[in-house]
Amino acid sequence: MSDDIRLICPTPIGQYAQIVMGHGGGGRMMQQLLERLVRPAFANPHLDQRHDSAVLDVGGKRLAFTTDGYVVKPLFFPGGDIGKLAVCGTLNDLAMSGAKPLFLSAALVIEEGFPVDDLARVLASMNAAAQAAGTAIVTGDTKVVENGKGDGLYIATSGIGLIEHDLQIGPAGIREGDAILLSGDIGRHGVAIIAEREGLGFETTVESDCADLSGLVGELLKAGVELHCLRDLTRGGLAAAVLELATDSGFDMELNEDAIPVTPAVRGACEILGFDPLYVANEGRMVLFMSASVVDLALDVLHAHPLGRDAAVIGQVGAAGEGRVGLRNAYGIVRVLDLPSGEQLPRIC
Amino acid sequence: MSDDIRLICPTPIGQYAQIVMGHGGGGRMMQQLLERLVRPAFANPHLDQRHDSAVLDVGGKRLAFTTDGYVVKPLFFPGGDIGKLAVCGTLNDLAMSGAKPLFLSAALVIEEGFPVDDLARVLASMNAAAQAAGTAIVTGDTKVVENGKGDGLYIATSGIGLIEHDLQIGPAGIREGDAILLSGDIGRHGVAIIAEREGLGFETTVESDCADLSGLVGELLKAGVELHCLRDLTRGGLAAAVLELATDSGFDMELNEDAIPVTPAVRGACEILGFDPLYVANEGRMVLFMSASVVDLALDVLHAHPLGRDAAVIGQVGAAGEGRVGLRNAYGIVRVLDLPSGEQLPRIC
Repeated sequence: MSDDIRLICPTPIGQYAQIVMGHGGGGRMMQQLLERLVRPAFANPHLDQRHDSAVLDVGGKRLAFTTDGYVVKPLFFPGGDIGKLAVCGTLNDLAMSGAKPLFLSAALVIEEGFPVDDLARVLASMNAAAQAAGTAIVTGDTKVVENGKGDGLYIATSGIGLIEHDLQIGPAGIREGDAILLSGDIGRHGVAIIAEREGLGFETTVESDCADLSGLVGELLKAGVELHCLRDLTRGGLAAAVLELATDSGFDMELNEDAIPVTPAVRGACEILGFDPLYVANEGRMVLFMSASVVDLALDVLHAHPLGRDAAVIGQVGAAGEGRVGLRNAYGIVRVLDLPSGEQLPRIC
Repeated sequence: MSDDIRLICPTPIGQYAQIVMGHGGGGRMMQQLLERLVRPAFANPHLDQRHDSAVLDVGGKRLAFTTDGYVVKPLFFPGGDIGKLAVCGTLNDLAMSGAKPLFLSAALVIEEGFPVDDLARVLASMNAAAQAAGTAIVTGDTKVVENGKGDGLYIATSGIGLIEHDLQIGPAGIREGDAILLSGDIGRHGVAIIAEREGLGFETTVESDCADLSGLVGELLKAGVELHCLRDLTRGGLAAAVLELATDSGFDMELNEDAIPVTPAVRGACEILGFDPLYVANEGRMVLFMSASVVDLALDVLHAHPLGRDAAVIGQVGAAGEGRVGLRNAYGIVRVLDLPSGEQLPRIC
């Protein structure tokens, strides 16, 4: 490492001179990579919104813009495939700003030797997910890399959405006393992926929760629910999502463990695997922050939608503090949640 | 290959059941992959514009939207690196619609073991290129894959631009009799990459032409040049760009070989390597289509800009026909250009 390169990189990320798998896992190491290297490199007010999509003013219109890379392994899993995941993930990032998704793009990095039939299946799956949301993949790019320089197929999708309401939905909208709702049961995506990858045969096949939440968010807005903040649960699970929002908003938060829906199949699989469902990845679940006064209205809308059937109030926002998150169990004992260091499950999305 | 999968993939791409390197090379094989598999899978009117970026109506504004994956090898080369390339390539795709670039996004796929210092250099390079164009990287994503499942770093960038004029710049704008201009000398990017990759020592180091053309396009529009079509030259070089436009517009075209600027260093390297400069990749060059009556004005603007100093009229659009492209040499002999089958140089961008 020469001195001039040190000058360009004045903030090493912890003790690491090289990227390790944990830097992609959604935990503290990834947070360090983003906070100490990526964000400072690109510093600008839009990036500093710290939200799933950037909210931009374009010619007097409020647009949401987002991008995500997908490296999930295996490419096909119960409940979805990398194509459905890539489209739904981008739709969800737009929805988390309360944007109506309009247009999507896709960049494919294909490994030499990848079966053309598999590619056709993934493309069909992407298109089906885009069409179901009333959007389309309007532009794209295809690259091929040598055998051994990829892993079948990586996809990066971007999306543009239009914000047609006046709410400022994001971490800055969180208020003391807000109710924290969860749209459904957690942990299915992570368990589905690991079971498929490792060939584990549980009693019940767990299907990924991979789904597009934009329709459900649209219903909530149409019903007049004043949403303060939305966040979909991905890498790092429910715990990482709530911890990030607590840190970014500066409010302490408390979750009630008993109120968090986990199916018996996911709970059983997590026990066998030694995972905590709170930290397992999801791809079709979100937390919602709102005033206590609109919770009943929101639950009515959520319960009427297939993706919100099991929605529940799982906690509330406390006072402005250090952004700590407590988990209260059935006996009233509160333990403080922490971000995992690296990752439980690599390449989950 | 089971029967039900055949149903999903009714149009095999040539004789290929698996993706090969040639499918990413910018030639006929890539065209087949796109035309027979990708475009039909995503079919929609925006994708059918067949342009570098999709032009979209968003709340009464005309936006350009584009995405590109970058897998260039090596990551650092004379004249640039993957970061500068990823940003300039996306700025150029926006510029080819005559859009003013507004916002960029970046998705990183990092291989385990990648040096943090190299990542910092690439991010700094991306930010510098974005800032120079008056834009910013406003949203992004980071994924890490295992050692041996990537090649250091892949980047996908997307961009949004605003179209502030009333022209319809694109393949559909090409007219019989249009002049074809080239903004500068060709082949530098491809030669720079291959020389660096293979450790070839030519007498002169050839630097990539990697550059952002959006400022130059902005100058042309400001001067009132009525542009009919723009296309930046990337994979497949000048030949692939003009052949694609001839095919998509349905007009025959003729280029004058003598008028096409090639530096002695690039010509010499191409002779040694057995490459035809017409097919070698560029990353900061474009062809421009316009009425003969505005050529003098356009050349004035081009020659006054560092990226257009060597701009020249290199040919003209003939009658509507089969979309054939002829190359006329100094002796008046015309040979018909054809797309290469696979690729000359893999992973050039």
